Amino acid sequence: MLDNMVTKIILDCDPGHDDAIALLLAHGNPDIELVAVTTVVGNQTLEKVTRNALSVARVAGITGVPFAAGCPRPLVRQIELAPSIHGESGLDGPVLPEPTIELDGRHAVDLIIDTIMAHEPGEITLVPTGGLTNIAMAARKEPRIVDRVKEVVLMGGGFNVGNWSATAEFNIVIDPEAAHIVFNEKWPLTMIGLDLTHQALATPDVAERIAAVGTGPARFVGELLEFFGETYKDAQGFDFPPVHDPCAVAFVIDPTVMTVRKAPLDVELTGTLTLGMTVADFRSPAPADCTTQVAIDLDHEKFWALIVDALERIGDPAE
Amino acid sequence: MLDNMVTKIILDCDPGHDDAIALLLAHGNPDIELVAVTTVVGNQTLEKVTRNALSVARVAGITGVPFAAGCPRPLVRQIELAPSIHGESGLDGPVLPEPTIELDGRHAVDLIIDTIMAHEPGEITLVPTGGLTNIAMAARKEPRIVDRVKEVVLMGGGFNVGNWSATAEFNIVIDPEAAHIVFNEKWPLTMIGLDLTHQALATPDVAERIAAVGTGPARFVGELLEFFGETYKDAQGFDFPPVHDPCAVAFVIDPTVMTVRKAPLDVELTGTLTLGMTVADFRSPAPADCTTQVAIDLDHEKFWALIVDALERIGDPAE
Amino acid sequence: MLDNMVTKIILDCDPGHDDAIALLLAHGNPDIELVAVTTVVGNQTLEKVTRNALSVARVAGITGVPFAAGCPRPLVRQIELAPSIHGESGLDGPVLPEPTIELDGRHAVDLIIDTIMAHEPGEITLVPTGGLTNIAMAARKEPRIVDRVKEVVLMGGGFNVGNWSATAEFNIVIDPEAAHIVFNEKWPLTMIGLDLTHQALATPDVAERIAAVGTGPARFVGELLEFFGETYKDAQGFDFPPVHDPCAVAFVIDPTVMTVRKAPLDVELTGTLTLGMTVADFRSPAPADCTTQVAIDLDHEKFWALIVDALERIGDPAE
Amino acid sequence: MLDNMVTKIILDCDPGHDDAIALLLAHGNPDIELVAVTTVVGNQTLEKVTRNALSVARVAGITGVPFAAGCPRPLVRQIELAPSIHGESGLDGPVLPEPTIELDGRHAVDLIIDTIMAHEPGEITLVPTGGLTNIAMAARKEPRIVDRVKEVVLMGGGFNVGNWSATAEFNIVIDPEAAHIVFNEKWPLTMIGLDLTHQALATPDVAERIAAVGTGPARFVGELLEFFGETYKDAQGFDFPPVHDPCAVAFVIDPTVMTVRKAPLDVELTGTLTLGMTVADFRSPAPADCTTQVAIDLDHEKFWALIVDALERIGDPAE
Repeated sequence: MLDNMVTKIILDCDPGHDDAIALLLAHGNPDIELVAVTTVVGNQTLEKVTRNALSVARVAGITGVPFAAGCPRPLVRQIELAPSIHGESGLDGPVLPEPTIELDGRHAVDLIIDTIMAHEPGEITLVPTGGLTNIAMAARKEPRIVDRVKEVVLMGGGFNVGNWSATAEFNIVIDPEAAHIVFNEKWPLTMIGLDLTHQALATPDVAERIAAVGTGPARFVGELLEFFGETYKDAQGFDFPPVHDPCAVAFVIDPTVMTVRKAPLDVELTGTLTLGMTVADFRSPAPADCTTQVAIDLDHEKFWALIVDALERIGDPAE
Repeated sequence: MLDNMVTKIILDCDPGHDDAIALLLAHGNPDIELVAVTTVVGNQTLEKVTRNALSVARVAGITGVPFAAGCPRPLVRQIELAPSIHGESGLDGPVLPEPTIELDGRHAVDLIIDTIMAHEPGEITLVPTGGLTNIAMAARKEPRIVDRVKEVVLMGGGFNVGNWSATAEFNIVIDPEAAHIVFNEKWPLTMIGLDLTHQALATPDVAERIAAVGTGPARFVGELLEFFGETYKDAQGFDFPPVHDPCAVAFVIDPTVMTVRKAPLDVELTGTLTLGMTVADFRSPAPADCTTQVAIDLDHEKFWALIVDALERIGDPAE
Repeated sequence: MLDNMVTKIILDCDPGHDDAIALLLAHGNPDIELVAVTTVVGNQTLEKVTRNALSVARVAGITGVPFAAGCPRPLVRQIELAPSIHGESGLDGPVLPEPTIELDGRHAVDLIIDTIMAHEPGEITLVPTGGLTNIAMAARKEPRIVDRVKEVVLMGGGFNVGNWSATAEFNIVIDPEAAHIVFNEKWPLTMIGLDLTHQALATPDVAERIAAVGTGPARFVGELLEFFGETYKDAQGFDFPPVHDPCAVAFVIDPTVMTVRKAPLDVELTGTLTLGMTVADFRSPAPADCTTQVAIDLDHEKFWALIVDALERIGDPAE
Repeated sequence: MLDNMVTKIILDCDPGHDDAIALLLAHGNPDIELVAVTTVVGNQTLEKVTRNALSVARVAGITGVPFAAGCPRPLVRQIELAPSIHGESGLDGPVLPEPTIELDGRHAVDLIIDTIMAHEPGEITLVPTGGLTNIAMAARKEPRIVDRVKEVVLMGGGFNVGNWSATAEFNIVIDPEAAHIVFNEKWPLTMIGLDLTHQALATPDVAERIAAVGTGPARFVGELLEFFGETYKDAQGFDFPPVHDPCAVAFVIDPTVMTVRKAPLDVELTGTLTLGMTVADFRSPAPADCTTQVAIDLDHEKFWALIVDALERIGDPAE
């Protein structure tokens, strides 16, 4: 594979079990170059998710990539965390190793801006898998990043399904104003929402295939899925946990892992029942200048093959 | 069939092409007794839809049933009509005969209340196929009707699809406050929304079967579908027109004509993108005391067989 | 005084201490003819305020005037009562006599409509002193009343002050949709809000003047003011209670009892902090077709003189 | 005067006629030390208001103070400018000199954060006189500034009066989400709104006193007021223009220039009629932990004396 076929991404995340797997996938897949990892309040406090990101970096053997902490709270709303799903640490289940790398001194917003502006136009893909506070702040602080990124591929929302309310998904509803900012910028944006990620279930055969890899990182993922499966069963009645965030990374690696549909998208800011709903307008074919699309159907086999492949490539990093 | 198996309904409508067919279905089907027909502003002005209802009564040979006019405007919002779908008359296409019956002197709201209170508890089914202004006004003027009706089976809304906006359906969004009132009362309520009615397409084979009936009312329906088909193609890009309102009557006749799912329902009143959206909460099994359900899948063959059967039973009424 | 200088009013109320005084004022003043009294849920349940109205009728010696009960709940919102101000009965303080007159059989909404339509255009003034549910329902059920009434003079709202929230007054916020309906119809409407009524304080000298009348009704008013004074001190920190509702009747009797200012008015339905706020636009002179005005400054002496005069004229009714 | 009695301020502005006078007042008054000037989109585009700020710096002879440009658009809403009041340049009227100082390389948000963090806690007062985008971004990017500033004294809002709508003032309504952020942080905040600034009218005697100073900057102010007076007369019907922004600087110099009242404050984000309204709750005495207050009455003489005094001290700067 030629180097220029590798996609450079900034992963903006709030690990979080599925964020951790997204990070492993991005690190282990050869078509992705992780140029920065930024953290944002979401599944747990900024402090916790940042430490989790650094711990996962050690598990995965990620070095030489700047990690920076971002916003500790949403733009307008009060902080809302998800301990019912991710536990008190944000990454309950496995024992988390002490981080061995240090945070970049910059604020995540500045690291995002600096990274995008330091690369050529169209080089960087933004992959947000948490609330969109950092991305919105970056777009407002340095509007030129909007034209300069290649695209935004985010996990969040859902056009027909919610989890944090009947109509809204957690990543969007915890900072709907930030989501509104991100969804209304004119960058190409792919929304990988619950409609898609509820198909990315970690079924028992998936767990077996991951266990069969037999490495430390694979065991780590196994423990994550075990905890995640229990909370998803208790809190939301799922038989097997939906592994949301790696779907966004998988789409960057290989767009054929899912079908997508172009549609105008927006985020509801004033609804009583619909605050934070991602509204897709499917009534007509999308207009020619529509820059947004939503993920529809997942190729389950292809998706999990990417995860297993990444774990095999990661192997057992020397720590 | 024993008389006590006949369901007594009040049809509250705004004819409207599909309302007209609903009226024909209710009149022609032997399991339904039409005890009152009330009209409400919607597809066209109250004056026009009321005259249309009386003209359809003549076409169908309906006599001895009180028809009453109701509210000429929504509760809070300004009037919004649908000439792009139903034409300037509200029933463009066929020549409309002069009505031969006269309106009941009462206001529709009072006719609804009087009819329900004059019958035994559980006898009357309300079938609204227009905006919900009359029904809401009746429930507020005489709250005892809520416990006294058998159920409400309405055409309106959509849990995954809109037509008048990305998220809202015409009947609901033209008077969302009335819909909020109706959806929040504790009567059994079945919402037959666009999710279902977009399956009730008048395909060419349907048109042929109706034409084959060979009567005046059948020709009338044929002309309605021809006009309706053209406006639905022009205004909303449908290949064949969805015939919404008879679906509600069909469900009253035979609930097996569609599948339904229990779910809490509510109507959004403050959303910027979602005003008038009917929100169904499918995240968990509906609670035991849930009194609302939504229609999911239509048995297309069974549905159209009911329409054709009704037209055959109506025959050519002596005028 | 010539009979044609007498103003015929329908008092729509929810007694309520100040409603009771408004009823006494309307009955005792010779320039007012009370043609109907209607009740609506508000300060207490419909059942309680209706009984209170009938009890006050006995205290005042009102006979030959139809009293009718109206809506037991607001249009869209849940019921909210005001026991902190009016006590559990809605008229705590004095002993309430058993009513001696019976309710009119009609619904208040129909009594309002029938009364207006039975009189000449411009003859009837509507004086709502509670939530606006009945009036809104009447305007929607029979839109012709809007052109037919002389004017609406209501107690409710406030352009610079709230009591049930920082921005909203009780009568409006308990049924904001009804208020929106009433404020947006094209009848002449005078809003007598908290800006004005907080000037109508029952100071000790007022209490003395009322006591000096020495009749049963005057003692009744004295006991009302005593209770009302205590709840207003406890619940809202007033030194003396503001006697809201009679201000609306007083304005009908003599518009010089207060100054008014024309301004466009509307009611906020979607605000988080401002739900039910009555918004007056004072930025420019009101446009020529503006039909709404707000009360500004009260002539305290002239106002209380009207109350005392009415009590003196009522005397001690033979019961 | 001892140095430690001088108040260090960051002026965040969008010049703007009254912003320009605020800048002159801050520079000319000996009790204020201007430690940074930041600009934000508002009265005109960011580009224009930033150039205007630099031009005013030349007029006033300001050197050695960093000026930095900030956000070119509001957080969530579309850009709304005020050419009807400030003209196409944002500072129409006088001829604007070419700037002689250069912008600081930093983003205004970073200059604000750096300046506050580089000073001792309690040293810096924030004086925003435009939309609150920069301040909100700074508070979200570096939350520690909230505890570290001395206080926020802002021009914006109005508890009883609006200008851009019946209820909202321009600075707040152009970025209500930013205002919501700023008003809900726990720093001491004084809102100097239209209630106060509509008392700061540039009457003819004021214009005469300024003309009598006889310097270049005084003539500049005279020309600003002449243009401002005409647009305020044409657009909003004022006899004399209200000079809003210097009121905030004047309060920092001498709090006795106006009376204030403690009250809980918040910003309405969802109202249809009240979007961007600053809601003050005056129903009860403010709670002990209330950190917000609003300006009530201006000492007109003392205020204008400060302006004239500043102009006299500035004299005719060597350019």
